[in-house]
Amino acid sequence: MEEGIDVKNIGLRGVKVADTRISDVDGEKGILIYRGYNIIDLARSSTFEEVSFLLLNDHLPTQEELKRFQSEIVPERKIPEAILEMMKWLPKSANPMDVLQSAVPVLGSYDPHLNEETREANLKKTLRLMPKLPILVAVWDRIRKGKNPVLPRSDLTHAGNFLYMLSGSLPDPDTARDFDTCLVLHAEHSFNASTFAGREVASTHAHLYASVAAALGALSGELHGGANSEVMRMLLEIGEVSRVNSWVREKLQKGGKVMGMGHAVYHTEDPRAGILRKISQKLAERTGERKWYEITEAIEVATREEFRKIKGKEIYANVDLYSASVYHMMNIPVDLFTPVFAISRVSGWTAHIIEEKFAEAQPKAELYRPDADYVGTYCGPQSCEYVPIEERSK
Amino acid sequence: MEEGIDVKNIGLRGVKVADTRISDVDGEKGILIYRGYNIIDLARSSTFEEVSFLLLNDHLPTQEELKRFQSEIVPERKIPEAILEMMKWLPKSANPMDVLQSAVPVLGSYDPHLNEETREANLKKTLRLMPKLPILVAVWDRIRKGKNPVLPRSDLTHAGNFLYMLSGSLPDPDTARDFDTCLVLHAEHSFNASTFAGREVASTHAHLYASVAAALGALSGELHGGANSEVMRMLLEIGEVSRVNSWVREKLQKGGKVMGMGHAVYHTEDPRAGILRKISQKLAERTGERKWYEITEAIEVATREEFRKIKGKEIYANVDLYSASVYHMMNIPVDLFTPVFAISRVSGWTAHIIEEKFAEAQPKAELYRPDADYVGTYCGPQSCEYVPIEERSK
Repeated sequence: MEEGIDVKNIGLRGVKVADTRISDVDGEKGILIYRGYNIIDLARSSTFEEVSFLLLNDHLPTQEELKRFQSEIVPERKIPEAILEMMKWLPKSANPMDVLQSAVPVLGSYDPHLNEETREANLKKTLRLMPKLPILVAVWDRIRKGKNPVLPRSDLTHAGNFLYMLSGSLPDPDTARDFDTCLVLHAEHSFNASTFAGREVASTHAHLYASVAAALGALSGELHGGANSEVMRMLLEIGEVSRVNSWVREKLQKGGKVMGMGHAVYHTEDPRAGILRKISQKLAERTGERKWYEITEAIEVATREEFRKIKGKEIYANVDLYSASVYHMMNIPVDLFTPVFAISRVSGWTAHIIEEKFAEAQPKAELYRPDADYVGTYCGPQSCEYVPIEERSK
Repeated sequence: MEEGIDVKNIGLRGVKVADTRISDVDGEKGILIYRGYNIIDLARSSTFEEVSFLLLNDHLPTQEELKRFQSEIVPERKIPEAILEMMKWLPKSANPMDVLQSAVPVLGSYDPHLNEETREANLKKTLRLMPKLPILVAVWDRIRKGKNPVLPRSDLTHAGNFLYMLSGSLPDPDTARDFDTCLVLHAEHSFNASTFAGREVASTHAHLYASVAAALGALSGELHGGANSEVMRMLLEIGEVSRVNSWVREKLQKGGKVMGMGHAVYHTEDPRAGILRKISQKLAERTGERKWYEITEAIEVATREEFRKIKGKEIYANVDLYSASVYHMMNIPVDLFTPVFAISRVSGWTAHIIEEKFAEAQPKAELYRPDADYVGTYCGPQSCEYVPIEERSK
C-alpha cells in the first residue's frame, strides 16, 4: 500500500474537493443558498429564468438584463433534424433519460462556439443548451406516444412552454407558476453526484456539452435523480391513504427505506420539501384530486413516527417526497420526473462547469484523478506468472 | 467553514477513494499490472480480446473460454438504424468523440438486459457494447467522408476488423497485430479521470451505458484522451527532424509543455511508451516513411536534455508520445486517435463499472458525493438581501 490520503469507502462524503461560490447547503439548519440568496425567497419571488441568470452570473438580473437573457434563450427552443430523425427510429420504450443523454453531446456540433474556451463562449453554449432540454423531453414524449411534436411558443415562460409542448394545451397560470417554482427549487444543490460528474469531466477540458451529458448519466441513477419517480411508484403501490400506516410500518420493520424520506446532507427538514408540500396541497385543492397529496402526507407522518420508535431518531422529508405528487397532478408521466429534474438542474451544472473551467472560486486545480489501493487478484497480492494460452487450464 | 477532510485544489491526486482488483500502476518503478499480469507480457503475447476477458473476469481465458467470448462479441458488430439515421443528418464536422458519446446511451434501449442489475447481466451488456464502439467510429468516419459504410467481417480480429471497416481494404497482418497491441496497452489504467467518471456515475446506480457515456466525455478532454491527437498536431507543426531541437528549446524556455512527455503517475518511463516506440520504429521500416518516427524520437531526446538543463530533473515519454506516429502511419485520421483510445479503454471502464456496482473489491460505498467550501458571493460571505426585480439596479 502506497502513502496517500485515505478516504476509502465513504463515497467522498465530507471530503472537501473544491471551493465554490455557487451554492451553500447548511444541513444542520436546513438552509439552502444560491449565490447568497435563500431558496425560500427565490421560490417565492423569482422565476427559473431569473434564478438561472443568478447561478450563471453571480447576481440577480435587473429587468433589462432579464429581458436580454430571455431574448437569447427563447429563439433556442428548437432541436436539430438529426435528433428528430434518431427519435423517429428509436424503440418507443427508450428511457427518456437515455434519449436526453444521447441528444446532448451532438448538440455541440451545431454550436459555432463549441471550441472556444472562454467564459463568454461557455455562457453562450449554456444559453443555447438550456432551452433545448425541455424541447427534447417534450418532443420525445410526443414521438414515443405516436403523436406529432407540438411547436414551441415564444410567449410562454420556460416552465409554461414545457407543459404546453408536453400536453398540447395551454397550462393554467397557477400550474405554470407552480411548475416554475419546482424548477427554481431543483436548479442547484452544490456538489451532488451529477454536478460532481459534470465538473470532473470539465476538469479534463472536455466541452460543456460532454460535461452535461456526464451529469445526465449520474442523475439517471435511482440513488440520485431517479428517486422522485421511485416515490411515485411507491404512491401508486400504496394506492390508498388507509393503507399507508401498515405499509410504512412493515417496510421499516423489515429494514427497508421509505423513498423521499431522509437526506445525506440535511439533518432537519429540507427547505425545498416544505415549499413542495404547500404546492402539492394547493394542486390537490385545485384539481379536486386530494388522494396523492394525502397519501404523501400520511407517509411523511407515519415514517417519522415509526422511525422515532425503531431508531429513536428523527427523519425528515426530502425534495423528492412531494415532487412526485406535484408532477403527477401536473399530468407529467412518471418516467419524465427525472428528465424534469434535469431540465432544472442544468442551470446548476453549467454554472459549476464554468466555475471549474475558469477556476472562479479557487486556484486552478489539475483534473480530478484520484488514487486507489490495488488489493490483488486471484493468484496473489501482486503478480501472476504469464502462461501462453495453449498451456492454460482452468 | 465546516469540518471535514480537506483535499482542495489537488484534483484528488494521491487521495485514495476505493480499493480495486483491476489494475496497479507503480509510478516509481514504471510497472503496470492488469489483474496480476505485467503489461509487458500481455503486450507481447495476448490479444485485445484476451485482455478484455481478463479485465472483466479476473483470469486469463483458456482457449475454450476465449472461443466462447469471441462467439458472443463477433455477432454484435452492428449498430441500430436510429444511430445510422442520426449520423446521416449530422453536420460532417461533428467531432467523432461527440458522436460516440451520443450513440452509447441509446444503445441500451436495444439491450434486453438493460434493467437487470446483476454481474452476469452487466457482463452481457459489456459484450454487446464493446464490439459496437469500433463500428460506430468507422461508420461515422465513412459517412462524414461521403463514403458508404463497410460491412464488418466476422473472420477478422477486433483490431483487424476496425482497420478494415475504416479503410475498406484488409490490413496487412503485421499492422493488424501492432494495432491489436496498441489496444492492449490502452485498455486499462486504474483510476484515471474517465474511469473515475464512469465509476462515479455507476455509483448512483445508473446503468452501464450511461456510465460509459460519462467516461467518454472525460476522455474527450485534451488533458486526458485528447493528448494523443495533440501530439500528432505537434508533429505536423514541427514537420521536419531538423526543426525539432529549436522548437523544443523555445517551447520549454517559454514555460510551455511538450505534449506526450511527463506523466502525473509515472516518475520513470511509462512501460507502454517503450513498447509503442518499438512499434513506431517497425512501422517506419515497413512503410518506408521514417519521418514521423524520427521526429518523435528527436522530440523525446531533446525534451529530456532541455528539461535536465532547465529544471535539473528527468522527464519521460508517456503513452501518448509514440501512439501518435503509430496511428498516423496506420492511416488513422488525427481526430480518431481519441476514439481509438476509447475503443480500447472501454474494457477497463466496464470492468471498473462492474467492480463499483457489485463492490467486488471493498465494502459497498455510498454514491460519490463530495463536499466543498462555500466561499461567498459578491454581496458578502453568506447571504444577500432579496430585492424584487422592479427595485433592482445594477
